[in-house]
Amino acid sequence: MTDQQGNERARRGLVLLHTGDGKGKSTAAFGQALRAAGQGLKVCIIQFIKAQTGTGEARAFQALAGQVEFHVKGSGFTWQQKNKDEVIRVARQAFAFAREKIMSGRYDMVVLDELTYLLSYGMVAEEEVLELIRQRPASLHLVITGRDAGEKLVAAADLVSEVRMIKHPYAAGVKAQKGIEF
Amino acid sequence: MTDQQGNERARRGLVLLHTGDGKGKSTAAFGQALRAAGQGLKVCIIQFIKAQTGTGEARAFQALAGQVEFHVKGSGFTWQQKNKDEVIRVARQAFAFAREKIMSGRYDMVVLDELTYLLSYGMVAEEEVLELIRQRPASLHLVITGRDAGEKLVAAADLVSEVRMIKHPYAAGVKAQKGIEF
Repeated sequence: MTDQQGNERARRGLVLLHTGDGKGKSTAAFGQALRAAGQGLKVCIIQFIKAQTGTGEARAFQALAGQVEFHVKGSGFTWQQKNKDEVIRVARQAFAFAREKIMSGRYDMVVLDELTYLLSYGMVAEEEVLELIRQRPASLHLVITGRDAGEKLVAAADLVSEVRMIKHPYAAGVKAQKGIEF
Repeated sequence: MTDQQGNERARRGLVLLHTGDGKGKSTAAFGQALRAAGQGLKVCIIQFIKAQTGTGEARAFQALAGQVEFHVKGSGFTWQQKNKDEVIRVARQAFAFAREKIMSGRYDMVVLDELTYLLSYGMVAEEEVLELIRQRPASLHLVITGRDAGEKLVAAADLVSEVRMIKHPYAAGVKAQKGIEF
């Protein structure tokens, strides 16, 4: 292998997967997006579950609006009951939106926040995600978060971190706080 | 317990600890700082190991300079050999700087990035950190990162996440990339 080939391989887009039951998966993805934006990369963030707008992350990324797009595409289905067909429709739309962004060639990094839940709930097939990973522009970095990533997704990723919950303040009666949880 | 007491307890400052050997501890802390800034909180970030300036995170946080201070206080001792006394002096100074920031009352959140290495290397005593946690302003959130957090630090934290490395691209010959690693 020549140096040039080595460098080409080194510059290819990576797939970073943050999974596990602990806190810090999405914030790690946002920190990664922030770091990338600071280095001049164009970033697109898509949230698949959260339906809440005006979160701290969404507001803060507005300061970097020239480089970071932030899209809230969830229906919040985990926390509020809704029509099941409608939830599936919203999820499928969000995934189609993500595919369009990924294939557009306009970004250096795309963050698919809480994507794995769409797989767990059977709303998107794992094979669709694997195909999108294979077909993406070669230099595009993908950051995927969410619990219970399957074996094939782990195999397709370059970097996999598992965040384990050791201790959580909810257990001690502490409520969700602005700036901490959202 | 009355509701008011409950709310007071809910609003107290938390200690968030991201430890373990996986990737995503510092980026989780930066994402947390970004979220907090987006909610109007004043944040101070102190890096204890990295000596490198001009990282993506440092540049990006300049866009939020009104709310987020970013201080690089490390000597980079893990990656370059230096005079040991000098390394210890720099670390002690950085810790004194952090204490001053924490006790100033000017911040809602202070991030102590890679602090645990100062404990592992014996440059700061665990008891000094525990005392600082106890003495800090009651509403101040502390975010601490680094491998090998000790039992007492884990006990003193409200939230503890362990980031486990499942797979790392270095193993596949991929080099550190701008926007991903720094």
